Amino acid sequence: MGMNNLGIVRRNIVRADRAAVEKLAGFGVATIHEAMGRVGLLRPYMRPIYSGAHLCGTAVTVLLQPGDNWMLHVAAEQLRDGDVVVAACTTDNDDGFFGDLLATSFRARGARGLVIDGGVRDVRDLTAMQFPVFSKAISARGTVKATLGSVNIPVVCAGAPVNPGDVVIADDDGVVVVPAAVAQQVADAAEAREANETGKRKQLAAGVLGLDMYKMREPLAKAGLKYID
Amino acid sequence: MGMNNLGIVRRNIVRADRAAVEKLAGFGVATIHEAMGRVGLLRPYMRPIYSGAHLCGTAVTVLLQPGDNWMLHVAAEQLRDGDVVVAACTTDNDDGFFGDLLATSFRARGARGLVIDGGVRDVRDLTAMQFPVFSKAISARGTVKATLGSVNIPVVCAGAPVNPGDVVIADDDGVVVVPAAVAQQVADAAEAREANETGKRKQLAAGVLGLDMYKMREPLAKAGLKYID
Amino acid sequence: MGMNNLGIVRRNIVRADRAAVEKLAGFGVATIHEAMGRVGLLRPYMRPIYSGAHLCGTAVTVLLQPGDNWMLHVAAEQLRDGDVVVAACTTDNDDGFFGDLLATSFRARGARGLVIDGGVRDVRDLTAMQFPVFSKAISARGTVKATLGSVNIPVVCAGAPVNPGDVVIADDDGVVVVPAAVAQQVADAAEAREANETGKRKQLAAGVLGLDMYKMREPLAKAGLKYID
Amino acid sequence: MGMNNLGIVRRNIVRADRAAVEKLAGFGVATIHEAMGRVGLLRPYMRPIYSGAHLCGTAVTVLLQPGDNWMLHVAAEQLRDGDVVVAACTTDNDDGFFGDLLATSFRARGARGLVIDGGVRDVRDLTAMQFPVFSKAISARGTVKATLGSVNIPVVCAGAPVNPGDVVIADDDGVVVVPAAVAQQVADAAEAREANETGKRKQLAAGVLGLDMYKMREPLAKAGLKYID
Amino acid sequence: MGMNNLGIVRRNIVRADRAAVEKLAGFGVATIHEAMGRVGLLRPYMRPIYSGAHLCGTAVTVLLQPGDNWMLHVAAEQLRDGDVVVAACTTDNDDGFFGDLLATSFRARGARGLVIDGGVRDVRDLTAMQFPVFSKAISARGTVKATLGSVNIPVVCAGAPVNPGDVVIADDDGVVVVPAAVAQQVADAAEAREANETGKRKQLAAGVLGLDMYKMREPLAKAGLKYID
Amino acid sequence: MGMNNLGIVRRNIVRADRAAVEKLAGFGVATIHEAMGRVGLLRPYMRPIYSGAHLCGTAVTVLLQPGDNWMLHVAAEQLRDGDVVVAACTTDNDDGFFGDLLATSFRARGARGLVIDGGVRDVRDLTAMQFPVFSKAISARGTVKATLGSVNIPVVCAGAPVNPGDVVIADDDGVVVVPAAVAQQVADAAEAREANETGKRKQLAAGVLGLDMYKMREPLAKAGLKYID
Repeated sequence: MGMNNLGIVRRNIVRADRAAVEKLAGFGVATIHEAMGRVGLLRPYMRPIYSGAHLCGTAVTVLLQPGDNWMLHVAAEQLRDGDVVVAACTTDNDDGFFGDLLATSFRARGARGLVIDGGVRDVRDLTAMQFPVFSKAISARGTVKATLGSVNIPVVCAGAPVNPGDVVIADDDGVVVVPAAVAQQVADAAEAREANETGKRKQLAAGVLGLDMYKMREPLAKAGLKYID
Repeated sequence: MGMNNLGIVRRNIVRADRAAVEKLAGFGVATIHEAMGRVGLLRPYMRPIYSGAHLCGTAVTVLLQPGDNWMLHVAAEQLRDGDVVVAACTTDNDDGFFGDLLATSFRARGARGLVIDGGVRDVRDLTAMQFPVFSKAISARGTVKATLGSVNIPVVCAGAPVNPGDVVIADDDGVVVVPAAVAQQVADAAEAREANETGKRKQLAAGVLGLDMYKMREPLAKAGLKYID
Repeated sequence: MGMNNLGIVRRNIVRADRAAVEKLAGFGVATIHEAMGRVGLLRPYMRPIYSGAHLCGTAVTVLLQPGDNWMLHVAAEQLRDGDVVVAACTTDNDDGFFGDLLATSFRARGARGLVIDGGVRDVRDLTAMQFPVFSKAISARGTVKATLGSVNIPVVCAGAPVNPGDVVIADDDGVVVVPAAVAQQVADAAEAREANETGKRKQLAAGVLGLDMYKMREPLAKAGLKYID
Repeated sequence: MGMNNLGIVRRNIVRADRAAVEKLAGFGVATIHEAMGRVGLLRPYMRPIYSGAHLCGTAVTVLLQPGDNWMLHVAAEQLRDGDVVVAACTTDNDDGFFGDLLATSFRARGARGLVIDGGVRDVRDLTAMQFPVFSKAISARGTVKATLGSVNIPVVCAGAPVNPGDVVIADDDGVVVVPAAVAQQVADAAEAREANETGKRKQLAAGVLGLDMYKMREPLAKAGLKYID
Repeated sequence: MGMNNLGIVRRNIVRADRAAVEKLAGFGVATIHEAMGRVGLLRPYMRPIYSGAHLCGTAVTVLLQPGDNWMLHVAAEQLRDGDVVVAACTTDNDDGFFGDLLATSFRARGARGLVIDGGVRDVRDLTAMQFPVFSKAISARGTVKATLGSVNIPVVCAGAPVNPGDVVIADDDGVVVVPAAVAQQVADAAEAREANETGKRKQLAAGVLGLDMYKMREPLAKAGLKYID
Repeated sequence: MGMNNLGIVRRNIVRADRAAVEKLAGFGVATIHEAMGRVGLLRPYMRPIYSGAHLCGTAVTVLLQPGDNWMLHVAAEQLRDGDVVVAACTTDNDDGFFGDLLATSFRARGARGLVIDGGVRDVRDLTAMQFPVFSKAISARGTVKATLGSVNIPVVCAGAPVNPGDVVIADDDGVVVVPAAVAQQVADAAEAREANETGKRKQLAAGVLGLDMYKMREPLAKAGLKYID
């Protein structure tokens, strides 16, 4: 093995279990992040390009060079039904790496969406297609095809490590990555957490205070909280 | 009194006059800010989490610690019908301090919305509830309950000083704070300003120039403006 | 001529050919930017104030001073049907230079919209009017009328040089400027490009890979790309 | 009283006790901030314009308008020996409000330095003069004298509330504000804290672990910390 | 002429008059900016890579592509004694386009320094060489040589238009561009301004107030300034 | 294994070979980054707290919670001679996690410095100690000791993945991470690269153009570069 992973396309990757992915698709990003013990989130600057965009699938990872989208074309061939493309860049770059042509190609190959630490364009078309994209920026600026990156190597995308085959879930609250090996475990924990929240919601709606429901009064007093008039 | 206000909950606060608050609810943030003489705005990075969100109410203030939402639970108990929670933080922090459970609790206690110099989550649920929130960020990241802040002390939220009981108004243009003592006066000034604008709007729509309507030609010439062909 | 262009209003400007402007209105910003050879874009922080806003017209340029919107009133008089106001500022400033009264005036004079490297307010009214605005910020903060800038001089707006009479096109993907002298040439190139894309889109939708359609396999191999299992 | 404090100069302000100010001058910003219970800091974007700059004095506050330094000239007259000018702005603005001429004037009137939530220029001259300045930006851009702000009203500077007469201390670590009423109390607490640190420093230098010195092992274990090999 | 200037190197440019350039070298950036009527500044994020760096020379302009420094090598051949390289980029990019090898080459060709709206590296070596650089960032990240930009075309660098042959002056306060055609005029105005400031500095040092020296009391009163006790 | 690595301290880590680390210490960050094939850099916002700071050592990694430096105390016990502490945070946070007391402790345990994606304080003392720190921010704000993170787990620090035992090198150009397994290989490649650069530097200093030395004229012509007069 060399000193770096540049110029490589890995064809065979181990995708998370399909049933676990489908179960995870039923939960929100906040719930999954909590169910994992508060890890796995991408930085909050990653935003949906249209209101209501959401996705869940297995990661095909891409490492891009600035102003260069060559590797997205390479990635298209590696897609299978149910995948999500997760694109990182070797440096900060907001150019428009992706638009409606690539979205058409990705969708034809089975992709469920794109998560990209960079810019995208053709937002109106992507919205009309309802092709979900979570990105750092929107920019009409075009890119070249000149320098190699990689496909299906481990990447860091918006601060989070992502391995090929991991589950990626994104909604209005952000983007979370679940390692393939714990997908089922996290899905189960998310289910338990959500069940637990339903009861709490009812109590709170009825006017019960979190102070009482979570039994916070004693620890608050111990911490020294003072009530004054 | 000590050197700081940390670890304190003030129970009795003087809220702005109800009638003044209701009158202020009828005006936009830009109008109120102008009516006050161009003061009272929070920094423009405070944005609604859904299009069309707006609120008006009396401030219950909260000082949070980074990554810690304990004080929001404490604040819930202090809420009365017509209040808005205004949450500042001791440092810059974008974590998701607030979500749909707390919104359910706040609403059950009478709150009209939240203004928070930090992050929130469960945006889809909050939108479905039509619970208006103005925040610095959206983030799924959870918070702990470990360190004391305060409730109902004077705070600085997004650059603006806010005292408990002040009127807070927020809409698509941002967030403005009206000190309780001048709420009626500001509401009256806003009314006068708006009446004045209606006439101007008609003239401008008819093609009259602001240059003439505001009598700007002479001061522009005095300032040295030159027209060339 | 003096050392600078401050305090000047140029009345006679050469606007781009009307037919070319109308043709350009039929294409998106990304297409036009590509058709020009990837130049002419404003920085991507320029965003529409409402979803779906778009505009195309000839530039009436304005140079503003921070916190001062005097020159926008001066610009209103220079507008003709089909113009777009392009406002730069002598420094970074997010104040609300523009609102519904000025929009009413601009529209009455024939303006098709506003591009401003600064803030605007009255977003709800502007949306109701469907008056398209692309700005750096939204802010309720009011401005004064005290210091001269200029109208219809060459400006740099959000990083792009703009001359009076240039064509300005803006949509969800951003804002692009087409020099008046090449407007027809760019419109023709955009048309050719779009025709070309239709065929590509069909192929990609049918599952053809960009790798094959664009004949990338050989240059990728030459660049050293390695496939591993 | 009106709705706002614009256009006002307060001549008589109550400055913090001179002896307390002098004692505070002997401590660093981090120590004083801790001694106050972790409050009073300005946002960390406030930086010294030259390495080693530091200051301590009583605040003469200024509220500036964007791109306008008129009020700094007004403030000069209100200065007494031992004062520090603390300048806030009604909006975000990085222009060069202050340079060597104003520094010469301020020094002649007894000022010990400047804290400004904006830009300054003539950095080389200010460094040669050893006139300490803590600012948000350095910018050569000049300002006008056209719009009123205020002098010696309560302001929010870089996120912190500052009242005229408060003690302001700044060094390489940032800027802290001590309310005049608690200046002596804070100075005493800072002294106690510093004495306490000396002993700790010796132990740590000798290789004693903070884990033992602060008795953290038990609470860490209770919190669930696990050691693995 | 085509629609854009990409892929072009202009060999013959008209440089500003040598005597005017030498005279401008004697003044600071703030003085020159004021002498021009407050125009010509680059955005204040452009900073020297070492304390005390300063430069003055005639611009050889470069338009770079993101992550690509090919055009800097092309520019080296166009340098003459007394030139300064002014490098813009087609998009925001902080990569390390420039280091000590290029500095060695530029200096051997007569360059007086570099102004670059991007990143540089080898800061220690550049400091040891006392090769002045003003940049947006410092970054060790290397760049490729794959995509054409241009040399000696008009560019927008950090918000300011720069033409080949213009005079560029940079110091601790920032970077200013003087069009070649007005170089002598600006140099003379700077001289007059500086002479004027010497007298003012003496008065201010003697305790005279700017309020009196600039006769501000009357306009302040007219504007409505109120003194209270 | 659980779903996450929170609340864990790994005691036995495999550090990079000592000889390789010492060899790497002889090269700059830019050289090492190039020798690795342009990977391994932390984002360029990581800056030295004093001019000339540099470090090289084996990573003891820390994952911090926002506003909480408990884990730095835990990390101290895991340090060996030649280590560098590399601290990531679960979210963006600029608080002052580290100061002169912890530096005293770290140095007593053999640490060569700190790389932290957060804030530090006591900058003057750290400079006097010549304890090298590379951080995102400087802030006097204190932190609590309440919530668990981890020590010696894989982390992402300022965008780069770091494993315990990796080599970390930092200087004026930034921070680079070399995986322990390739430390010797990278050191050798850096040596070769530096030898190669010496010859180039001489040629460039003699006025040879990079265009000729790197044989760029033909590829530039092929890419379509045009020289005009």
